Amino acid sequence: MTTTLINDVNAGAVGDLIAAVQAQPDKADTVWSATVNWNGGFRSSAQIRDFDPVPSDEPPGLGGTDTAPNPVEQLLGALGNCLAVGYAAGATAGGIEIKDLRIELEGDLDLRTFLGLAPDGHAGYEGIRVNVHLETDATDDQVAALHDAVIGTSPVGHTLARPIPVEIALV
Amino acid sequence: MTTTLINDVNAGAVGDLIAAVQAQPDKADTVWSATVNWNGGFRSSAQIRDFDPVPSDEPPGLGGTDTAPNPVEQLLGALGNCLAVGYAAGATAGGIEIKDLRIELEGDLDLRTFLGLAPDGHAGYEGIRVNVHLETDATDDQVAALHDAVIGTSPVGHTLARPIPVEIALV
Repeated sequence: MTTTLINDVNAGAVGDLIAAVQAQPDKADTVWSATVNWNGGFRSSAQIRDFDPVPSDEPPGLGGTDTAPNPVEQLLGALGNCLAVGYAAGATAGGIEIKDLRIELEGDLDLRTFLGLAPDGHAGYEGIRVNVHLETDATDDQVAALHDAVIGTSPVGHTLARPIPVEIALV
Repeated sequence: MTTTLINDVNAGAVGDLIAAVQAQPDKADTVWSATVNWNGGFRSSAQIRDFDPVPSDEPPGLGGTDTAPNPVEQLLGALGNCLAVGYAAGATAGGIEIKDLRIELEGDLDLRTFLGLAPDGHAGYEGIRVNVHLETDATDDQVAALHDAVIGTSPVGHTLARPIPVEIALV
């Protein structure tokens, strides 16, 4: 048996999952997790499954020691990585070979609430802008359809664009 | 001159920033960025400033090669790392020494929209739960006040809990 891979994506595994979810819808209900350990100062690390811990710190101007990307930068990275999966999955499903894909992300953040200078304000990103550089031989219509599909199905994109219940408890 | 550090936090740098923002409010307007490069399959990496690229992949059941945490796991890590900064900053400001801090995060995600089985559905987290294990000698009231302050000032927490404009453009 020969398996042809487009974009080095294992489309068979995705197809198997879709078939499994169609047969048993509760297979789509997934739970993801992480544990963060504080390491002193503004340094911490996220433990995800058995991967190497993902380090975090803040720049010196924010009181950190600048040993790693900070959490709001990590958030942009998570969004870009999620969109990359979306383009790779959608392009593969549509028979489009991706030659190159680079995603640039920027977010605007007013530090006043974080610094305690604007109580009850919005401490998060005011907005996030993403520029996608996608190189393929597909037609403009195919690429536009792919782009629309990615935006309509992005787990991190939807989590950011919509209000999500976040329950934070001291235990 | 002797500088006393609580929690190994450079409180002076945060104080300097607060004073600078009070003197010139537009210093609080910050822009953060990341660039994501696709590496084949569902593998990509986020380049943030000049730090080592942060790798991303998907588990085999989702068509990936399982070489790194996936984007929705990274999102939980970013939230936990952000909350850790919040507790460290608030505790330091309140003269509370943190003995240990561990933050456990979980999120529920229905894969049907991501898989194309629920068009126009919500592809993101339906909800995120965070359990914070904080060990200090502070009183319950002090810890409760710290907790409330962290929740009220968390950049990633607010970004997730509120709807954020996310503009994604092909360029």
